[in-house]
This record gives sequence, structure tokens and C-alpha cells, in this order.
Amino acid sequence: MLRARAGWCWGLRRCASLPRALRVREALQAPEPLERVKVQGWVRSVRSQKEVLFLHLNDGSSLESLQIVADPSLESRDLTFGSAVEVQGKLVKSPHKKQNMELKAETIHVVGPCNALLFPLKMKERHPLEYVRQFPHLRCRNNTLGSLLRIRSEATASIHSFFQDNGYVHIHTPIITSNDCEGAGELFQIGVANEAKESAEKTHFFNVPAFLTVSGQLHLEVMAGAFTRVFTFGPTFRAENSQSRRHLAEFYMVEAELSFTESLQDIMQVMEDLFKTVTSTVLSKCPHDVELFHKYIASGQKGRLEQMLKKRFVIISYSEAVEILKQASQGFTFKPEWGCDLQREHEKYLVKHCGEIPVFVINYPYDLKPFYMRDNEDGPQHTVAAVDLLVPGVGELCGGSLREERLPFLESRLQRLGLADTYQWYLDLRKFGSVPHGGFGMGFERYLQYILGVDNIKDVIPFPRFSHSCLL
Amino acid sequence: MLRARAGWCWGLRRCASLPRALRVREALQAPEPLERVKVQGWVRSVRSQKEVLFLHLNDGSSLESLQIVADPSLESRDLTFGSAVEVQGKLVKSPHKKQNMELKAETIHVVGPCNALLFPLKMKERHPLEYVRQFPHLRCRNNTLGSLLRIRSEATASIHSFFQDNGYVHIHTPIITSNDCEGAGELFQIGVANEAKESAEKTHFFNVPAFLTVSGQLHLEVMAGAFTRVFTFGPTFRAENSQSRRHLAEFYMVEAELSFTESLQDIMQVMEDLFKTVTSTVLSKCPHDVELFHKYIASGQKGRLEQMLKKRFVIISYSEAVEILKQASQGFTFKPEWGCDLQREHEKYLVKHCGEIPVFVINYPYDLKPFYMRDNEDGPQHTVAAVDLLVPGVGELCGGSLREERLPFLESRLQRLGLADTYQWYLDLRKFGSVPHGGFGMGFERYLQYILGVDNIKDVIPFPRFSHSCLL
Repeated sequence: MLRARAGWCWGLRRCASLPRALRVREALQAPEPLERVKVQGWVRSVRSQKEVLFLHLNDGSSLESLQIVADPSLESRDLTFGSAVEVQGKLVKSPHKKQNMELKAETIHVVGPCNALLFPLKMKERHPLEYVRQFPHLRCRNNTLGSLLRIRSEATASIHSFFQDNGYVHIHTPIITSNDCEGAGELFQIGVANEAKESAEKTHFFNVPAFLTVSGQLHLEVMAGAFTRVFTFGPTFRAENSQSRRHLAEFYMVEAELSFTESLQDIMQVMEDLFKTVTSTVLSKCPHDVELFHKYIASGQKGRLEQMLKKRFVIISYSEAVEILKQASQGFTFKPEWGCDLQREHEKYLVKHCGEIPVFVINYPYDLKPFYMRDNEDGPQHTVAAVDLLVPGVGELCGGSLREERLPFLESRLQRLGLADTYQWYLDLRKFGSVPHGGFGMGFERYLQYILGVDNIKDVIPFPRFSHSCLL
Repeated sequence: MLRARAGWCWGLRRCASLPRALRVREALQAPEPLERVKVQGWVRSVRSQKEVLFLHLNDGSSLESLQIVADPSLESRDLTFGSAVEVQGKLVKSPHKKQNMELKAETIHVVGPCNALLFPLKMKERHPLEYVRQFPHLRCRNNTLGSLLRIRSEATASIHSFFQDNGYVHIHTPIITSNDCEGAGELFQIGVANEAKESAEKTHFFNVPAFLTVSGQLHLEVMAGAFTRVFTFGPTFRAENSQSRRHLAEFYMVEAELSFTESLQDIMQVMEDLFKTVTSTVLSKCPHDVELFHKYIASGQKGRLEQMLKKRFVIISYSEAVEILKQASQGFTFKPEWGCDLQREHEKYLVKHCGEIPVFVINYPYDLKPFYMRDNEDGPQHTVAAVDLLVPGVGELCGGSLREERLPFLESRLQRLGLADTYQWYLDLRKFGSVPHGGFGMGFERYLQYILGVDNIKDVIPFPRFSHSCLL
């Protein structure tokens, strides 16, 4: 025993005479039995038999709980589902195949009781996601949300690593801005609380109207004038009065901008690499958490993902897409027509047509897209170098473009829109060492929806904000 | 030559007959000469001699620029400071000691010209930070801001790694919230743009008043009921009408929460480990960028930092701090008195008194601190288990506490404040498996100010927002 303990010293900092504190994940993975161990967490199940008391203890470090085996004399009234406990005892090899180790309890101390009748989560019940959504302050104690949050954390770390490993500089683009990047108009405006009492005009905190950002793109473009590769990963906002399963008022976007690039191909390569690298990392680092989703929420998704990771994404032009839609045997509510936006039903059909793998659609009509997209010059203001990435189930996952870096093109477009004064600073970027550049944004929640097969976007973010709802 | 090229293949993806595209950093670090190389970037200096033309090219991948050596026949009118160029040629060992490699140009193509007269940054001028701050869309092309942004990016990555390596789950706490965590009242409120036209009451997008978050703490506490270690790193907001060098309306906070901890010592250990790990990483990964600050902005800071990294931070109690201040020979504008907040002048004195290294001040008066801090029970509502970390130059860098996990204590305190109804959900966390827990927040911009010795907080964030200013 002594030898084993000496050769194995995860995070041992305290005096050796105190029991060693282990997290559940560490206990489960321990290579050898251990005496004098302490584990803390929340009770996920209690099963009392005549001769033995079984508990399952979880502390959020893994989906799997640690089995505690105790003498029935250690049972107490407070030892209920949801209660917080500290258990001391011996970590031993489990006789069961399903788990590696289990803890033979010597003492069980209830740190924080939990009234099981009032607690909205119930033992061994598979609560629907809609049900737990009603309890934003407690739903993280549900297995599914626990797994989701661990996956989300791992995906976040992986996104940062991907860009850092590829020489990108991370930029915190501002949340509060005086711009409206998309011109979509669905903006949240910011004021000082209680400011309404006084004259609204006089009390603008920033002297100008200020909004919550809808995209970090224009600010990334500023940085792309000094760094050839930049990215941002932060919250963005839309005041969209939508109850859809694909929209939130507050959501996260990964955005990247590349300088000295003249081809959409380069942008698409980064999008595809990012998608595949992060997905592979999540699949390999959170296998059990991902399995929960693929087993209970979206069966079959695992195989589809693995197939997708092996294939190159499809690339079609917008014009080809419209042709495909026109030749479809199926009818559409919105008739496909060159010059019109692709609707949800069109996106679905295109993805299916291409074999249910992600599809890049490129070169959209000039008039459909915002002012900053680069004119392809394939006709008088005919198409721009835009790209959308459509994925099965979710639809549009990413959007990107080459940006119009040529001063005369951009200037005349902004003038026609009456925006040349507003965007003087943006025009400046084209006056002082302008370079061909482009970039894209990926909706992080939609990404999680796609890889996990989660139907409602509210279930892939810790605290969903949408119209009529801002709980906590 | 061929052998060298074959044995060295950074990012070679294109056809071998095309010149190899290298970033400046890669070119500078190349172990061997290379034929047929392409480098792109912005001109940082032009020096034309009778026999030779020298350029310095920078692409943001490093502080150091690449020296281009060309025949004067390659000079053109557009080849000015600030212009964007693409240079092809041979990468050779530089005869100068200062640089490893230089590029012998065969062609120079000006991609984007720059009118040097209109461009507000000038060649070889050391612009004061106040000057470049006037040009938020161009200042990243300045050396100092370039270095700052690379350091900021590296520190961001290092913070994520620190927590991930230590088993923390990353949580995106919400930006829009219906809470006011600190009760400080300096809140930004959110509305829908143009909503004022209609009745304000009826058009609340979220049905309830919604604010920009001042801290992710309460939401992290939710998560600390399922995960024993969580962290967040995102924007926070204060509608403070301040022109100080230490405040912004939008700034970044790193926050962590630990469950099953009953001692401030544990919290302080994480704060100190985080600070030292991130600082060591930044110093080792960005030596030249950091050196620029320590050479031109804050001389002597390098040695002070290195000393600090070797020492344990000091810990004193608030009561001790007041005693030290009372016995000080120096006079204060605000007389030190038990029960009063520490002022800037007091913080400065304490840090100096302790030897100009970071100082933890713990156990503050109960009445000075927010409702969620844990009563030390050292007298009737006498002190709470709070901690502030004071650092030289900057003052308060971190704040933390144990949280009141005992339902009766918290309930009666909230009732006295008339907040029991508002925080029903927060009380719930103490009803269902409550555990002793605590955490802290660190101001990211103040952290950067401290390690780099930057006087004004507006110079350590890409797009500063403060009262009367929201540029871009």
C-alpha cells in the first residue's frame, strides 16, 4: 500500500496524515486501491439494502458517478438525492465490470441536505429538456446539462487552441459599439439605468447612441490591417422577436479574419479545418458526454459525424444551388428564384441533395448581401464573394466573405446607401495600406446543436436569453 | 539548396513551383537560407541609398520586422511607410548581428498604397500613447499597440489553459441579466433600438428590466452547485461616470468559483497560482513584446516582476491594515478608521509597507461588503471572509470571498435588505445540497496594466469604452 501511494501523487499538498481529497474523476481512474481517501459531491442515487447501502456521488468532473458502498448503519435521514456529502474511506477495485473503482465508506457526512420533495429534479428520472429548462438555477445538476456544459467548455478551449496553434492573434472586439455592422436593424440599445427620468438626449452616457454588437467583423477588419490573422470568440446580440429553435437574443460567435487572401477557397479551408479539428477534439476528450447525446437525444448522429469528418465538404455556387432547387421533384412553399434568399426548406433540400454533409454555397447575388462584401465583377453588380456553410439539421452554421478592399468600389457603394460619412473610418482602412482580406463567423450554439443533435438552441447555452425571457 | 528545402517544410501546401509564402516571424526564425520565398506585410521603414534599397516589413506575427534588401531599381513612388507590399526573393543569412535572416528582393509589388502625408502614424516616430489613442482604427499599426495585443492574446490563452489544466469547467455566464450582483447601481440598461417611440412599459423585450452584467459571480455560483470548479472570462460593465486611468465602462474579468472549500487560503492560493502562471507564460512566450514595455514605458518593471514571481504574496487582515495605516508616519487625506473603505492612498501605502509586492487583505467589516459574503462569526456581524488583492501601481487587482452558504444567515440578511423575494432562486441554491464555496474575480485590464507598467487602462484594451466615448 505504501509503495503504491508513494508512486502516485496527484495534487497531494496537505499533510500526509489527512485523508487525500480526490475528485470523482480521479477516483474512478485511480490505477490502484488507496486507503484514507476523501470524496465530496452530490448524491445522484441512494439504494438501501438490508446488508449494504449504495450511493452514487457526482461532482461534475465526469458524467460517471462514483459508487459508494457503506454499512447500513451509516444511513441517515438527510442522505437523500441531491444532498451534498463528504465520504471518507478506502478506494478499492470494484467487483462490477461497469466501473473501475468504488469507495468503501468509513464515514459519511451530509454537508448540505436537500428536501427531495421540494427539489424539482427527481432520482433516476429522465427529465425532458423542456422540463429542466424551467429551473435555470438547478438544471446544471441534470446529467444532460452537465454533459453539455463539459462539452461546451472543451469546445471553447479547443477553438482557442486551434487559432493559437495556427498563429492567429486573439482580439476582444467590443460588446458596446456605435456601429450596426449588418444593417439589419435588430439592435439592442444601451442606456444608463434610471436615465429615462431625465432628458434622454442629454444623458447619453457615450454621447452617441450605443448598441450591443451584432458581429465583431468590422473591428476584426481594423486589426487585419496590422495582423495577418486575427480571431474573436464572444457574445453577440439580436433583438429578434423570435421563438424559434435556432435563435437567441444573446449567442456566441467565433469570427476570424485573414489578410492577404484573394480567394474564398482560403476562407473555406479555415472554416472546414476549424470545424473538423474542434469536433475531433470534443469526440476524443468527452466520449461519454457526447455518447449521452448520441444515445438518448439524437441516435445515429455518431456515425453521421464520423462519416462527415472523413469527407471533404461540398462546394456549390448560389447559381448552381438555385438550379438544383428548380429541378427538384419536391415542391417548396417559397419558389426558388435567382436573386432571392435561400429559405430554410431550400437549405434542407440542398444538404440532402449533397448527401447530408456540410455544403458551402458561394457567390451570392450582390443585392442580397451587405455593403462590405467583395464584388466578383462577373457582371454589373451581379454577385459577391460570399460563402454560407449549410449543415444537416441546423441550416446555416457559418457565413463569410471576401471584403471589398478597393476604395472606389466601397466608396461608391456606401455613398449609394448614404453611409459614406458613418463609415469614414472604415474607408480609411482602404486608404492606408489596404490588402485583400476576408473572414467568417460561426455560430457556436448552432455548432453544438449540430454535433450533438440538439433540437432547441436554448438547451446548448447555460443561461438562454430570448424574447420575453431573461431568467436570473 | 534543394536538400535544405526538402528537410524543412513549414506549412507547405501549394504546388512546389510557386514561391513559398512565409510569415515574417517564420522568415526571421528560418534555420537555413531559402530560395523562392514570398513575404507579405506592411512597410515599417524605407531607406533608399545609392546602391541599395532597404525596407522593413511587418505582418503582426512579431514585433521584429524583416529586413528587405533590394536593388534601387525596384523602388517606386508607392513604396511608402504604411503601404502593403508583397516581396519575392531569397531568404539569406543577414550579415548584421541584430537579425538572423534578411530577404534579398527580386520583385516588390505594392498591394495597397498609403498616402504618407495623410496617414497619422509617421515613420520612425515614437508616438505617445495619448496620440495614437485618437485613431482607434489605425493604432494597432503602432509598435506599442501591436505588442500589447500580442501579449493580451497570449495572456488570454494562458488563462484558459491554467483553468483547463486544473480541472475547471468554463462557463459562458450571461451578459444580459435581470440581476444587479453588486447592488452598486451603476448599471447599463438594455432596450430595443427605437423602442422609445412606443410605450416603454409595454415593449420590454424580455418582459423584465434587463441590464449588462457587472459580474458573473452569481451565475457561477449556480454552476458551483454541480461542478466543484468553474470559471468564466468575459466582458463586464459599469456605467460609472469616471475619467480615471483605472476604470472603463466595458472591461474583462476572469472569475472562478470553488465548491467544498471552507478557507480563504484555498481561494488565495488559486489567485496567486493564476497570477504567477499566466505572468511566467507571458514573459517566456512574448519576451520581445514585454521588453518593449519594460524598456520604454516602465523601466525597472522587469526586475520587479521577476522578484515578485519568486516571493509568496503577503497576507494581512483588514484590522492589521488599519493598524498599519494608523501608525504610518505619513498623513492621509482620508483618516484610516476601522469600518471605512480603504482608499487609493491607503492601498498604495500598504503595498509599499509590505515591500512593493502583492498583498492580500482579508476579513473586512461586515457592513462594507455585499450580502453574499460569509459571516466570520467573530462578533455580531463583525467581519466577513472577504479578500482583496492589492498590487503595486494599480491597487485592487482581485476581489473574492467565501460565500454565505448557510440558509438562515443568508435569508435574514436578504430580508433585512428587502431582497429576499428578488433572490429566491439564490436562496434555493442553499436549500438543495448547499456546500461551502468561494471564489474571486480578477480585472484583466488591470492585470495587464500591472505586468506591463501601463499607466492608462485605455491603452491595454483594443477598443476602450468610457463615459463620453464609444469610438467605432
